[in-house]
Order: sequence, then structure tokens, then C-alpha cells
Amino acid sequence: MKPNLPDHANAPSDAQRVQALSRLIADAQPVPLIAFLHALPPDDTPYTLSHLDDPLRTALFSLLAEHDADLGADLLEHFDDVYAAELVSDLDVAAAAAIVDEMDSDEQADVIGELVDTDAQAAEAILDAMSPEEASDTRRRLRYDEDTAGGLMITEYLHYPADQTVEQVAEDLREHGEAYAEYEVRYIYATDERRGLAGTVPMRRLVMAPRGTPVARLMAEYPFTVTVHTPTDELEDLFDRIDLSAVPVVDEAQVLCGVVQRAAVQEARGEAAEEDLAKARGIVGGEELRSMPVVSRALRRLMFLVPIMLLMMVSAAVIGLFRDTVQRVPLIAAFLPLVAGLCGSGGNQAVAVSMREISLGLVKPADLGRVALLEALPALINGVALGILIFAGVFLWERDAALALVIGTAVPTTILLAAVIGGGVPLMLRRAGLDPAMASGPVVTTLVDLVAYFTVLVLATLLLT
Amino acid sequence: MKPNLPDHANAPSDAQRVQALSRLIADAQPVPLIAFLHALPPDDTPYTLSHLDDPLRTALFSLLAEHDADLGADLLEHFDDVYAAELVSDLDVAAAAAIVDEMDSDEQADVIGELVDTDAQAAEAILDAMSPEEASDTRRRLRYDEDTAGGLMITEYLHYPADQTVEQVAEDLREHGEAYAEYEVRYIYATDERRGLAGTVPMRRLVMAPRGTPVARLMAEYPFTVTVHTPTDELEDLFDRIDLSAVPVVDEAQVLCGVVQRAAVQEARGEAAEEDLAKARGIVGGEELRSMPVVSRALRRLMFLVPIMLLMMVSAAVIGLFRDTVQRVPLIAAFLPLVAGLCGSGGNQAVAVSMREISLGLVKPADLGRVALLEALPALINGVALGILIFAGVFLWERDAALALVIGTAVPTTILLAAVIGGGVPLMLRRAGLDPAMASGPVVTTLVDLVAYFTVLVLATLLLT
Repeated sequence: MKPNLPDHANAPSDAQRVQALSRLIADAQPVPLIAFLHALPPDDTPYTLSHLDDPLRTALFSLLAEHDADLGADLLEHFDDVYAAELVSDLDVAAAAAIVDEMDSDEQADVIGELVDTDAQAAEAILDAMSPEEASDTRRRLRYDEDTAGGLMITEYLHYPADQTVEQVAEDLREHGEAYAEYEVRYIYATDERRGLAGTVPMRRLVMAPRGTPVARLMAEYPFTVTVHTPTDELEDLFDRIDLSAVPVVDEAQVLCGVVQRAAVQEARGEAAEEDLAKARGIVGGEELRSMPVVSRALRRLMFLVPIMLLMMVSAAVIGLFRDTVQRVPLIAAFLPLVAGLCGSGGNQAVAVSMREISLGLVKPADLGRVALLEALPALINGVALGILIFAGVFLWERDAALALVIGTAVPTTILLAAVIGGGVPLMLRRAGLDPAMASGPVVTTLVDLVAYFTVLVLATLLLT
Repeated sequence: MKPNLPDHANAPSDAQRVQALSRLIADAQPVPLIAFLHALPPDDTPYTLSHLDDPLRTALFSLLAEHDADLGADLLEHFDDVYAAELVSDLDVAAAAAIVDEMDSDEQADVIGELVDTDAQAAEAILDAMSPEEASDTRRRLRYDEDTAGGLMITEYLHYPADQTVEQVAEDLREHGEAYAEYEVRYIYATDERRGLAGTVPMRRLVMAPRGTPVARLMAEYPFTVTVHTPTDELEDLFDRIDLSAVPVVDEAQVLCGVVQRAAVQEARGEAAEEDLAKARGIVGGEELRSMPVVSRALRRLMFLVPIMLLMMVSAAVIGLFRDTVQRVPLIAAFLPLVAGLCGSGGNQAVAVSMREISLGLVKPADLGRVALLEALPALINGVALGILIFAGVFLWERDAALALVIGTAVPTTILLAAVIGGGVPLMLRRAGLDPAMASGPVVTTLVDLVAYFTVLVLATLLLT
């Protein structure tokens, strides 16, 4: 590996990189290929690998499985889990197992977990071909929910019987030093005779202590622990509150079974936010990449679009009821989507703030009244401001004071209701046990559409016909 | 601190907690107050504190500033930066400085940085009242962008001249052990005479080595380093690729000035995703909490709604051009928002996938053609499926084959264009140097509205009038 981040001046273009790598793979010469991959800047690696033709990418990982499985594992960990699972499933079983064997224990479970979802048989075959310890660790881990300490913990950590001395620990470190390089080594964990956690010892104290000291003498009296079932949310709050970088994980029998690190919890939080972002834009499951098969992409998108269409047909029916009004004032057709869309945007701003406050733990479903009030106040200000602007706009455009009055009144009315609806719907979905990330948008949009159409058309019927 | 996460059975209700805490603050007895706060489960802390009346919350932090500033700092770090800055700005300067003094160096800069944005004078006053070292560290740090290694690094780390021995390091650890408890201590950093970085030594090697060994003998030959200006994106890619949990940060003169930790980079990534989520829903700047002043919340929301309104008036004008068609086929008014909304949702799904692939480094602006093709394929499938469904729906509703044909043709046409537009717009905004998180939605919605209105109305004019 190069000592520093490489200089980007005079770097080859993206296309040149892809071409050079393609040629090296086609040549099937592992030495220059591996050297090239090591020299590739980290931030160009996913782009370059994703732009290889599919058969070349498979050939690359097959070569790496044979000659440098560790590098193959590093490259794979670099990808999104879904994408990594796709890559693995294209390899033959032995090559896949060789690479997955070298991954970190938490990443192994993530990738195999994705594979179980799409092709359980392939996942089983790879597990059977992996080294028995790695496979049994992965199988155990797959039993835990991804969003719990059991799913996030690593099983590479240092543990010693509490009655060993610092010298005995140092001896072990000398013996297995290289193997431990990728371990969580801020703490060592002292265990009792049945592998229950006796205490944690910061590595620092081992440096300080005389070499003959027993580990038991150095450990924190009441170590913080979580169980395999502690959810990610609670871990986040815990790490927000305490200054530890890692916490030991125990099972129901208080047996030590892993360590969950602050970085893993932060990473899970980031992934959850990225998934919510995709869900908010209508991606079912929160995960789609363009490398996935076209038909499955289409079907997953359709799962969101069909309910949307049905909801929209319901609100369109409201407009159908007022077709006489539309016939007499056809220009109203131009303002229906405008009022609904504008106020829908206002409603979605309120959704954003509720979602954020839910994730920060600042609001709960019981706070509905308070949220409604705190949404109504800014919505009143904005409703009046937008109402005046749109009254002026419509009047200047059509020179029709009555039409301008209808639209200028409908906007503040609708936006006020939209803000209250937008603030409240995520809380109500949450109370109903549904995921507000995906459903809030369509539900709020539909309700706001109904309010907007009804308000505009009733006012138009009263004042314009 | 309690040894384990507390049991949630028989826990007091949220309201009872808020009430109990309010009473303790009103009594102004620091000892029971501090005991209560320590016993509060981490995941209930933000909720309880945010539901205190404003004057009580200010009184709480004033009390903590005097009696347990460290706890005050811990509680403050528990909050979102914006919220923490609000809390700090409500305290008197001495209390604010006492609490900020106890925060981690990266959090200090985040909170003071927020305060600089809203009330630069208050920020300056607090810096003046802080301990001189902490203040000068924070001031130095404020010069770096939040999204760089300089903004993310901590300055609490262990560094020793490379010629010191393990015993001398152990001596220092014994002397300052407690102060170092919150330091990044996975590595120690060996420096040369001008405080340039000479190498990094994993703590583990200090445990293994004979006590007389000089540090220089233990250090990694080519330590990975980043500069204060390395952006978060690159740090993410770096930590994806390497197995280190922290990397030293140097300035232009190669002088060691901090350590950036994997957890901090993951946290920044999570915050960026959460901000993008809020931006996607129309929150300018990506940050709003309902505790902020009503007028500023209203104005920030208005900054998004006014451009939306102007864009929507442009597309509404298209409908205005076809008012004769609407008069003759008033039911078309019901389908304009339906087709536009449905296809807009399809366009936003494509936006989601482009945003995700941009953030994973899988696409760049040059890939526009490839993205368009990969969006067109699933859109064709979905367009046909939705077109058939909506043709059937309209025909059953209105028994009007011509109307059903117009809508059933407009949907696949529009959704195909919507997917290509949605996939492409984030790439084009990116190329133009704009933030696609916020602008993609409105731009795509407006373009899809125009396509939808135009397609439906032209077809209606041709086939129905």
C-alpha cells in the first residue's frame, strides 16, 4: 500500500483506468493485476470495478480468490452489501467461499445475509465451502437481526481468563501479533471459567502495569455490556452518552460473544438514513442499483407506483364530481395541480421535521397535539405570504379578481391543513407500527390532494359559477 | 453509571420523568439532580430534556455548569449540533464556557460553529471565557471545513518523541492515566524534533515489547496519513479500504495536528445522509427542529416553497393554453394531476437510484447515456403495465374508450421520459456544481409535469375534440 493518498494531478482518466484493468484481467497475470489494484486510489475503486464488463469482473474476483483472497475481501467490503452479494453469487462456490472467508465477521454476515434473501441455496453452498469456524460464526450471526448488537458485533476481539498476568497476555500478543492486527484492540476482555465477562481492561492499563499483575486487578469493576438483542437505536443512544469506543456483547446466559464498536453503530445509522432517503423517493426496501436485473428493478418500483396510482384515482374522483364547475371555469384545471403540489410540498417539509425529531427521540406519538400546534404557526405565516403572492400572480395573469380570490384563499387554507397533516402522519404511522419513511410521502400527498381539490372546487363553485 | 442497560419494565412514564426532573431543577439541589440524570436511560434522555420548559432547561444546564460541567457536556453532546447550540446560547457566558470546555474537541467546534452562524458575538464571548488552550484549539479548528479531516479530527491523542522508550511512555500513562481515559488510544504517535509524524505504534505492540525498547523500533514504517484538507468523501473511501480505526492528520508542513477516527467519519456520513433526507423533503440547509423560532422556520420553508410556486405556475400555464380542450372534455382536469403525479413518482425513484450511485461513487456525469438506457428499460415495462391498468380503470369508470386510450397512452410515454429525466437530472446538477439533494426533486417534478400536461392535452385535443 502506498504511504499517503496519491496525488491526483496527471492521474489517468476513468476510462483509461477501466481499460487498463480490463486488459490486466484478460491477461490473467495475477502479479501486475494485484499491483494495479493496490495502486488504485480508494475513491476511484468502486467506479472502476463497477464499469468492468460483468464477465471480466467475475474473472477478476476468481483470480483474486486464488491468488490474493484478502485483497478480494477488502475490495468486496468496499461495496454496498447488495452489490457485494451480486458479485459473490456470480463466482463459483470455491472462489466465493475463499473470498468471504477473509472478510470481517460482520461483513460476512451482511453479504451472506443478502444472498440468503435472493438465493438461499447459493448462500448455503458457500457456507458449506467456507472454513468451518468462519461458517459457524456466520451461521450463528445470521440468527440475529441486522439491527441489533448481535448483527453489528465483531467476533474478532481479545479475551483472556481474568487470572492471567499481563506477561501472559503480552506473550500471547507476541505469538499471534499479526493475526490480531485487524482485531478490536482498544480493550481486552477478562473472562471467568464459563466464558462469562468478568471485566474489561483498556489496553493502556496493560502498558502501565507491572508485567506480573493479574488481569483481574486491572479491570473496570462494572463493565458496560449490551445483549445480542439490544437494538441499534439503543446502541446509538448509549454511544452518544458514554465515551467508550466499543462495548462487549453477551448472550442470554451472560456469555461473552462479541464486541460492538462505535464505528459499526455509526455506520449502521448512516445506512439506515440512506435507506430512508431511497424509501422517501419510492424505492421499496431502500435499495436499488442499476446493476440489478431489469425485471426485478421494474417490479420493485411497480410495488410503489401501483398503490400511488390507486390513491391518486381516489383523489381524481373528487375532481370528477365537480366536472360542471370545470366546464364553466376551465382555467381552474390549471390551478388544481398547482395548489395541490405547492401545499403537498409544504406538507412534506413537515414530514421531514417529524421524521428527524422521531429519529432524535424528541417526539413520540403522544405529542400529536404539540406537533400540530408547532406546525400550524409557521404554516399560517407562509400561507398568508404565499396567498398574497399567488393572488397577485393570478390577478396579473388573468385580470380576474374572483379567480385570484379563490386561489389566494385556497392556498393558505390548504397549506395550514397540509402542515398539520404532514407533521402528524409520521407519528400516527409510527403508532400503528408502520415504517413512516416510505408511507408518509404518499399518504400525506393523497390527503393534501383531497384537501386542495375540495377547497379549490368548492370555492370556485360558490364564487365563480 | 449503572453497570448494564436498565430494565424497562415498570419504568416511569415519559410525563412522570419530565415532571420529576422539573421538580428537581426547581429545587436547585445539585446532588439528587445529578443522580437522577445519571440514572436516566440514554434513549430517554433527549426526549425528557427536550420536553422541559425552556427556562427550566436553561436552569438545568446552569446548575450543571457549576456542579458537574462534565455531565453537562455529555448531555449536550447527546443532542444534535443545532439543538446544542440553541441550548448553549440560552446560558450565561460563564456557564456556557464551563460546559463547552468539557466537550470533546470535535464537538466543541461543531457547537461553536453552529453558534457562529446564528450569533457570532455570543460565540466569540464564549470562546473568550473558555480555558485558553481549549479556546485556541477550537478557533484553529473552526478554520477547517466541517467536511474535512481538519473538521472531524480530535486533538486528544497520545504522541511521544520517537526516541523515548516504552518505559517512558508507560510512566506518562501512569501519571496522566485518568486524563487520557477519553483519548483515542488505539495507537500512539511518534514524532520527530519538529513535531512531524515519524510513525504510528499500535498500543498492542507496547504491551508486547520489552520496556527498554525505543518507540522508534516499534513503529510502522510508512504510516497512513491524511491532511487537514482531505474531504470526508475521501476519508470514507479510505476507511472502506483499510482496516485502521484511526488515521493521523498532518498540516501543510507535515506537522501532526490530530487524529481522525473511523467512527467520526461514519458519523459525518450518517449526518450527511440525514441532511440529504431533509433536503429532499424541502428543508433548506437540511436542518430544522420545532424548538427553533417560528419566524425563522417559516422563512426557511418559504425559501423552498416560493421557487416551487414559480416553477408550478410555468407548468400550469401549459394547461391554460389548452383551456378550450378542458372546456370540451372537463373530465381531463381529473387526469392531469394523476398522470403528472404518478409519473413524477416514477421520476423520483430514478432520482433516488442516481443519488445512491453518485454517493457510492458508481456513476459520474459522463455516464449520462448509460444511465438513460438503464432507466428506460424498467420504465418501459412499468409504463406498459401501468398503461394497461389505467386504461382498464378509466374505461370501467367512464365507459369512454377514447378517454381511456388518451390516458393509457399518456402514462407510458410520460413515465419513460420521467425515468430518463429523473436518472439524468442529479448527474447534470452535479456537473453544474449544484447540490442535487435539494434541487433534483423540484426540477424533475416540474419537467415531468410539463411532459405530462403536454402529452395528455395534445392527445386529448387530437382524439377527444
